[in-house]
Amino acid sequence: MRKVYLSNTPRQEALDRFLAGVEIARRSEVTSVKESLGLVTAKPVFARLSMPGYHAAAMDGIAVQAEKTFGASDQTPLCLASGDGYRNINTGGALPAGFDAVIKIEDVQLLEDNSVEILTPATPWQHVRAVGEDVVAGELIVPAGHRLRPPDLGALLAGGITELETFSKPTAAIIPSGSEVVDPGRERKPGSVPDFNSTVIATYLREWGAEPYILPIVPDIQDKIRAALSGALREYDMVIINAGSSAGEKDYTFSVLEELGETFLHGVATRPGKPTILGQALGRPVIGLPGYPVSAYMSLEWFARPLICRYLGLPVPQREKMTVTLGRRVVSEIGVEEFVRMTVGYVGGRYIASPLTRGAGVTMSLVRADGLLVIPANTVGFEQDEQVEIELYRPRSELRHNLLAAGSHDLVIDLLGTALKVRNPQVSLSSAHLGSMGGIASIGRGQAHLAGVHLFDPETGQYNLPYIRKMLPDQKVHLVNLAYRMQGWIVPAGNPDGIENIEDLAAKKLGFINRQKGAGTRILFDHLLQEAGLSPARIYGYEREEHTHLNIAAAVAAGTARVGLGILPAAKAFGLDFIPLVEERYDLLISDAFYRSEEAGLLLSIIADPSFHEQVESMGGYSMRDAGKVIEA
Amino acid sequence: MRKVYLSNTPRQEALDRFLAGVEIARRSEVTSVKESLGLVTAKPVFARLSMPGYHAAAMDGIAVQAEKTFGASDQTPLCLASGDGYRNINTGGALPAGFDAVIKIEDVQLLEDNSVEILTPATPWQHVRAVGEDVVAGELIVPAGHRLRPPDLGALLAGGITELETFSKPTAAIIPSGSEVVDPGRERKPGSVPDFNSTVIATYLREWGAEPYILPIVPDIQDKIRAALSGALREYDMVIINAGSSAGEKDYTFSVLEELGETFLHGVATRPGKPTILGQALGRPVIGLPGYPVSAYMSLEWFARPLICRYLGLPVPQREKMTVTLGRRVVSEIGVEEFVRMTVGYVGGRYIASPLTRGAGVTMSLVRADGLLVIPANTVGFEQDEQVEIELYRPRSELRHNLLAAGSHDLVIDLLGTALKVRNPQVSLSSAHLGSMGGIASIGRGQAHLAGVHLFDPETGQYNLPYIRKMLPDQKVHLVNLAYRMQGWIVPAGNPDGIENIEDLAAKKLGFINRQKGAGTRILFDHLLQEAGLSPARIYGYEREEHTHLNIAAAVAAGTARVGLGILPAAKAFGLDFIPLVEERYDLLISDAFYRSEEAGLLLSIIADPSFHEQVESMGGYSMRDAGKVIEA
Repeated sequence: MRKVYLSNTPRQEALDRFLAGVEIARRSEVTSVKESLGLVTAKPVFARLSMPGYHAAAMDGIAVQAEKTFGASDQTPLCLASGDGYRNINTGGALPAGFDAVIKIEDVQLLEDNSVEILTPATPWQHVRAVGEDVVAGELIVPAGHRLRPPDLGALLAGGITELETFSKPTAAIIPSGSEVVDPGRERKPGSVPDFNSTVIATYLREWGAEPYILPIVPDIQDKIRAALSGALREYDMVIINAGSSAGEKDYTFSVLEELGETFLHGVATRPGKPTILGQALGRPVIGLPGYPVSAYMSLEWFARPLICRYLGLPVPQREKMTVTLGRRVVSEIGVEEFVRMTVGYVGGRYIASPLTRGAGVTMSLVRADGLLVIPANTVGFEQDEQVEIELYRPRSELRHNLLAAGSHDLVIDLLGTALKVRNPQVSLSSAHLGSMGGIASIGRGQAHLAGVHLFDPETGQYNLPYIRKMLPDQKVHLVNLAYRMQGWIVPAGNPDGIENIEDLAAKKLGFINRQKGAGTRILFDHLLQEAGLSPARIYGYEREEHTHLNIAAAVAAGTARVGLGILPAAKAFGLDFIPLVEERYDLLISDAFYRSEEAGLLLSIIADPSFHEQVESMGGYSMRDAGKVIEA
Repeated sequence: MRKVYLSNTPRQEALDRFLAGVEIARRSEVTSVKESLGLVTAKPVFARLSMPGYHAAAMDGIAVQAEKTFGASDQTPLCLASGDGYRNINTGGALPAGFDAVIKIEDVQLLEDNSVEILTPATPWQHVRAVGEDVVAGELIVPAGHRLRPPDLGALLAGGITELETFSKPTAAIIPSGSEVVDPGRERKPGSVPDFNSTVIATYLREWGAEPYILPIVPDIQDKIRAALSGALREYDMVIINAGSSAGEKDYTFSVLEELGETFLHGVATRPGKPTILGQALGRPVIGLPGYPVSAYMSLEWFARPLICRYLGLPVPQREKMTVTLGRRVVSEIGVEEFVRMTVGYVGGRYIASPLTRGAGVTMSLVRADGLLVIPANTVGFEQDEQVEIELYRPRSELRHNLLAAGSHDLVIDLLGTALKVRNPQVSLSSAHLGSMGGIASIGRGQAHLAGVHLFDPETGQYNLPYIRKMLPDQKVHLVNLAYRMQGWIVPAGNPDGIENIEDLAAKKLGFINRQKGAGTRILFDHLLQEAGLSPARIYGYEREEHTHLNIAAAVAAGTARVGLGILPAAKAFGLDFIPLVEERYDLLISDAFYRSEEAGLLLSIIADPSFHEQVESMGGYSMRDAGKVIEA
C-alpha cells in the first residue's frame, strides 16, 4: 500500500530553507505619484523643487520692510503708506520683492487715507514661510523600500515629483486541484467540494502586495497537475498549489514538483498546517498548501507572505500582541507548534481569551477568532487563568468593547449581536457555544459578560434559577428573560418514522443524535427519558454528540440520524419537519459588573424593543412575551 | 478692515455637533462575494448550505461500518473484504452510504486477496468530518456592519453564499480652492502653489472606505466657490473644501456655506487644525479644511473619518498606542489640544520619542513621524524623561528596529538609511536635525543610537574628540569616520558678488544666512570670523538661522540671502555656485550599547563597503578615504 511520510521541520527552519533556495527577481516600474498609494519605492526619492518655492506669508496681514518699522511703539505709532510702505497679503501669498516681514492683520489699524498704523516693529522674516519650509529641493523625501502612505504622496508632489520608480507587484498563480473540487457558484452534489480556498488565498495575496491569478481547477491526475504547474511556472513569479500536498494516494504535488524542480521540504512541525510542501522549479518558488482551509491559510501566511515582502523589500508585518488571561486550559503536544484561534473580551478588568475549536477544517473558527495563541513546540500548553501573549486579529481598541456570550447558543443571541453593532458599531459580540452549564460556570469564573441558559429543574419545575443558586451560591448575578422557545423533535420531512414521543425513539430503534453534556437540550432529553422510565441504553446513538441545534439538524438532513431534539429554526434551515414538544424559558445570565455597564444598558434596551421582538418572532418557534423581564435582580 | 473671528470649540464637542447635525443616508448594494473584500455587510448573513455538505473522510484510509469492526484486537485480527467490508477513501472523500467510520491507512494491513486486516475496532463516526463541521446551514456567518476579511469570504462561499448586500461607499467631493493653486504637474511660478493636498485627501478618504472625487480647482471668487459647492452637494454624499476655511480676506468657505446651508462651528481648539469649518447644506455634510497640509490632514482625520465610518456602520479605528520616554521637553499652551509629530526609537531598552517640528505647513514632519503625541487642552506639556502615551504611525514591531540618528545632518546619513533598509528591511533610520552639539548631548542622555558630528576645535586643531571628551567625560562611546566633506560659500550662480573669503562678506555687506546654534557649520563660521578678527555684528543677517544646508541654499536661491556656508550637494540642488573653503571630518558618534548590536554591525559593514563609497563620492564634495576608521574605541 501507499507509503506515508511527512517531515517535521520546524516552521522557522522551513522558511529559512525556502527563502535561501528560491530566486527573487525584483522588478520595478515607473508609476504616477497620484496612483502610487501602497506601492513600495525602488529607490530613494529626493525633492526636485522646494515647497513653498517662494517666501510666503504665514498670516493674513500686511507685508513690510522690517528695517522701516524699527522704532514703532505705543508712544510712537508708525504710519506706512500703501504701496511702498506696505502691501496687503493673505496667508500663502508671495512676499513682494524687497519686503521681508509680515505683520498680522490684528496688529494693524487701517487709516482713512488707506495708509496703516502699527504700534510694534516687525523683526526681519517674521510670519514668513521661508522657501523650502515644507520640502526643500535636494532633501530625501522617502528612502528605498518604503510603502507609500497618503502624506508621502503629498510631500512627493510638493517636492516636484510626479512619477517615481516602484517595485512591481510579484504575480502569483493559484492552482486549485482536486477531482472533487468545483467552482463555488456551481450546484453542489455529494462528494463535490466548492473551491472557496482560491478566493481566500487570492485576497490574502492581494492584501499582502502581490497580484494573484486563479487558474482553472485541475483534477487529481498527475499529468494534468504537471502541465498546470509547468505552464504557470513560465508565466508567474510564484506558484501556489492547493491542495494535494499531503502523502495520500492522490496527492501528486510532491512528485510533480520533484520532477520539475526540487522540494526543500515536505511537512512542517505545526498544527494546523503540517502537510505543506516548499520547493522551487525554474527558479520560481512553489508552495503546496494543505487542503483544509485553516491549514491552508496559516501556511500561506507563514511562507507566501515573507516571500512577497522579500519581492517588495518590506519587513514582514507583525500583528499587534497582547497579554491575556486564559479562560480555559489549553493543552498541546510536545514537538508540534500549535496555533489556537481564540475569542477575547474585556471582562471584569481583564482581557479573557478562550480557545475556539482547533479543527483545521473549520473556517468559521477563523471568522470568529479575535486572536491567535501560538504554543511553542517545547510547551505542553497553558493552565486556566495563566497569562499568555496572543497575536490579535482585531485591534485591541475593538476588543475592549467585545462582549463575550458563553453558555447555550441561540439564533436570538446572533440577532442581538447584530442589533448591538448597528446601534453602536464600537460594540461587538463573540459567542462561545459552551452549553447552559458551561455558561453558568463561565460567569462564575468571571470569564464572560453574559450566558444563555435554559435549564429545567424537574424537582422544582423551575427554569435556570435552581441551577444558578447551586452553582453560584455566593455571587451576585442577574437573570433576564430573553425569549421562550419551542423545543421538539427534528425529523426528516414528512416525519417518515411517525415520531410523536420519546417512547417511539426507543421502540423504533431510530438513530438518535444527542447534544453534548451540560447542554440544556441534553438535560431536557434526560428528563424526558426519566419521565418515560427509559434508560439511555435504550436510545441508539445516545453517545453521539453535536454542539449546536443546527448540527443536529444537519445530521438528520444527511440521513446519518433519524431524529434529534432541537429548536424550530434549525429544522427549518434544512427543510426538515419539527414536532413541537415543550416551550422552554431561555434567559440571559449577566454578571453584576457587566449589568451596571453602559453596554449592558444598550443590550437591555434592544431586548425590550418591540421591533426586535417582531424580528425574533418572525423566525417561528419564539415568544417574546417576557423579553427583558428581570427574573432575579 | 476685515473682521477676525474663529471659535475655540473642543474637538470632541465639534465632532458631536457635526455628527448630530448631518443626515447620513446609508445605501446598500448587492456585491459578488469574490469582489467583496474590505466592504461592509449591510445585513447579517446566514449560511444557506452546509460545508461539508456530506459526511467526509478526515483521513486517508478505509471506510468501514463501525459495528462490524467490534472485537478486532492484536490477538483477534479482523479481516474485511473489499466492497461490502471496506472501501478505500481519501481525505475529503464522501463516506459511502451505510458506512459510518474511517480507519487510518497506517492502521490497515493490505492482504493479498485485496482484503484488509485491522487490529483495533472503529468507533462510530471516527475520522469523519460531519456535515456542517466547517459551516452549517442556518448559522450566522457574519453580522451586519462587519468589514469583510479573506477568511470571511471563504466561509461565505463555503456556506453557499455567492452574493451579499454591502453598504455602498459614500462618495466625497474634494473642492480645491485658491487663486494661487495649480495642478501639481504644472510648471511652478512664484506665487503659485501646487495642489498636492487634494491627492493626499483623496487617498486618505479611499483608505477609510469612501469614494473620493477631486473636482476642478476653484479660484478665490465667492460666486465660483458657491457654484462649485452647490453643484457638488447635488452629486456627492459629502463635500470637502480645501482651503479658504480661515477668516482672511479671501476665505469664502464660511460665507458660502452660510448662504447654502448652515455652519455648526468655525474654529476648533486644536493646534494644528484650528481653522476648520463644519456644517451642512442640503442635508449633506460639508467640511472646510485649513490650507496648511498638516492642519488639513489632521482635521480630515478628526471629522471626515468618523463620518465615513458612520456611513459604513463601522467603529472609528484607533491607532495602536505605546508608552514612551520623552527625549525632550514638550511645552503646550493651555486651552489648546496640541498634536505633536514624534520620532521613536528603541534606545538602551526604552522607547525614546522626540518631537519633530510643529509647523502646520511641514508635510515632511508627517512623512518622518513615527507617532503622534496628543497634549490635552488642560496640560502645559511634558518634561524631558517623562513617560507619555503616544499614538503610533508605524507598528511597534518596526519601531523596535528604528535607528535614531541625532546630531548634524548630512545626505550621507540618508544614503546610509536607504542602504540599511535595502539590506535588511526590518531596519529603518529616523533623523533628527539637532546639530553636532545637540547630537553629542543626545548620545549622552541615551536618546539616540548615533549622531553625526563635525566640530573643529581651534585650540587643538582636532575634530570632534575634544568636544566629546568635554561633554561626555565619563561615558564610553565610539567615534567612527563617515566621510570628509568640503564646506564652502554657497552663492548665486556665477558668484556675482565675487566672494572669496569672509572679509568679502563683511566688506560688501552681503545678506548672510546663518546656521542654528550648536551646528558644526556655525561653529566653523564663528571660527572663521575669529581668525579674521571680525565681530558677528559686522555680518548682516548673522542672526537669521536655518537648520539645514539645503535650507541655506534655498534662501540663497530665493534671493533673500546673498551667501551662506554649507556643503556642495546643497548648492548643486539649487543650481548655485560653491566656493570651496575647508575640508572637514564628518564622524559618527555611536553609543557603546548600540555599537555592540547586530544593527551596528550592519551599519558599519555598509560604511566600509566600496560600492557605498562610490555612491557617496559621485555626489561631489566627499572623500571616503577613511570611511569606517575607528577614531577612538
